[in-house]
Amino acid sequence: MKGTVLHGPGDIRFEDVPEPKIEADTDVVIRIAATCVCGSDLWPYRGLQSAKGPSRMGHEYCGFVEDVGSAVTSIKRGQFVVGSFATSDNTCPTCGIGYQSSCRQREFVSRAQSPYLRVSNADGTLVATRERPDASMIPGLLATSDVFGTGWYAADAAKVKPGATAVVVGDGAVGLLAVLSARQMGAERIIVMSRTPARQALARQFGATDIVVERGADGIARIIEMTGGLGADSVLECVGTGESMHQAMAVTRKGGHMSFVGVPHGVEIDGQALFNAHIHLEGGPAPVRRYLPDLIDLVLEQTVDPSPVFDLVLPLDRVAEGYKAMDERRAIKTLLMP
Amino acid sequence: MKGTVLHGPGDIRFEDVPEPKIEADTDVVIRIAATCVCGSDLWPYRGLQSAKGPSRMGHEYCGFVEDVGSAVTSIKRGQFVVGSFATSDNTCPTCGIGYQSSCRQREFVSRAQSPYLRVSNADGTLVATRERPDASMIPGLLATSDVFGTGWYAADAAKVKPGATAVVVGDGAVGLLAVLSARQMGAERIIVMSRTPARQALARQFGATDIVVERGADGIARIIEMTGGLGADSVLECVGTGESMHQAMAVTRKGGHMSFVGVPHGVEIDGQALFNAHIHLEGGPAPVRRYLPDLIDLVLEQTVDPSPVFDLVLPLDRVAEGYKAMDERRAIKTLLMP
Repeated sequence: MKGTVLHGPGDIRFEDVPEPKIEADTDVVIRIAATCVCGSDLWPYRGLQSAKGPSRMGHEYCGFVEDVGSAVTSIKRGQFVVGSFATSDNTCPTCGIGYQSSCRQREFVSRAQSPYLRVSNADGTLVATRERPDASMIPGLLATSDVFGTGWYAADAAKVKPGATAVVVGDGAVGLLAVLSARQMGAERIIVMSRTPARQALARQFGATDIVVERGADGIARIIEMTGGLGADSVLECVGTGESMHQAMAVTRKGGHMSFVGVPHGVEIDGQALFNAHIHLEGGPAPVRRYLPDLIDLVLEQTVDPSPVFDLVLPLDRVAEGYKAMDERRAIKTLLMP
Repeated sequence: MKGTVLHGPGDIRFEDVPEPKIEADTDVVIRIAATCVCGSDLWPYRGLQSAKGPSRMGHEYCGFVEDVGSAVTSIKRGQFVVGSFATSDNTCPTCGIGYQSSCRQREFVSRAQSPYLRVSNADGTLVATRERPDASMIPGLLATSDVFGTGWYAADAAKVKPGATAVVVGDGAVGLLAVLSARQMGAERIIVMSRTPARQALARQFGATDIVVERGADGIARIIEMTGGLGADSVLECVGTGESMHQAMAVTRKGGHMSFVGVPHGVEIDGQALFNAHIHLEGGPAPVRRYLPDLIDLVLEQTVDPSPVFDLVLPLDRVAEGYKAMDERRAIKTLLMP
């Protein structure tokens, strides 16, 4: 089969790769119904994260079970399944407290931008839907695999409560779905930092009440002013740079909650500044598996629709165009159909 | 009157200072029943924190109300009171969620190593006991003013739960009272990092179940091994150096809680390491006022006795000896009696 390989900065190729097979008896192989390009895929694409030789790409996936390892008990051939970008046994003590993305059996999925994918730890990673979903539901279900699950974690880890004020730093796909998640959790006011009209519009569609276009000290001052001098109850950092982390810390109220869900690149947090900020801080790889059953239900019941973050749809073999469009910020997120 | 003044590194003098008077109508003046030397007083004493000229010292206090400003409603002349090292109005939104030590009206107390002390924001800062306490209760009550309140915050912010495993990093007075606090909150296993036999003994008296003498990578490996490879549910960082923060992060389980309550000096936290640690983090100046009523009750009912952290008692005019003994680690904490 053909699959997506990054050969170097800017060099994405859809080329011959081995077809996946069951390797461990806890594996399954799925036929991908849809996959997509993640903001985090752009770090190596831009050469900002070193790679040793060609790398298979993609970690967001949903699809139909093709083959099942002999030790797999809960997943059956033919089922439609969604899984997390991080596999988990879902039985260890870390999974037991809902941190499946740090499971000791964890493997990061990295070959999902392909027609077929092997998933390890299948019983603890995949969630099957009761029925095979309608094709129109596929993009929304795909989103739960990472981008929606990560936005949801941003809101959950920042302890968004009904009636609260939330600030979302970042207008990428995760930030936009963090808005939708904060709205779903009952936030009354949702302030998004964004300078791009199309993204501002989608943020409003997802439930944002206020947009702040200023950045740096001006952006901080604006939000402090909007929150009566206090800062926000919950601040969701969805970028992962030093500037965005600083921005987020500075607009969280004393005693408030800040989450950070984008892998920080070159970020140093000043200990004394964090002490003086006097906040709760939680971040890390989103434990998507914890949320998957509920998020799948929310999508299938049409309570929420995360799929509008996919503003570019391409056949999988045109994956290189999808990376390019996101790199140039012409697309928020590219959906790829095998 | 005479009071304590730091003139430069190592130069503590008990010398003539102005007697405090009511300045704002929300002030009270108290006659100090007991005060003490804080670990944080040692930073400027050691020249590790710059001071502009001579500085009045001391921020831990309890005593009898001598004079009351005209706007003070809840505090009466003659009452015995304890207050936090940080004053607060206890009515603003920040106080309302229990973060009084970051109140916008906050002033840091700094003249308590004296026979008399003016306290601002008296209604929102001081807690009066129902009766004038027995003299034997004074050291325990004094401890609630900062060192016990801060140890309690360390345990509370690290979400110590009944049955949990807690690690306390640091065997200073705050660390030792963090042990007592964790025990009071029901921790089943309390591991303390300490290399000093006298402090180890007091830690065990306060409820520690295990002592780890190793530091650095060895200390981390030891605790990971003791916790079945997982790390601890709750980790209480009570030092404030880069090494202690790193140590604490490394022994917190995925999804666990870490607190830090000592002012970090020159600490930079690596963003990616914190992301990978996947923990909850809370730190800042302990909101002692939130805990004072309960901690005063715990002491007066003799449920707990924090006073053994005071292992050196001196008359106030010998305060310089008290600093020296703590600086040389001959004393854990010096109690000063006017």
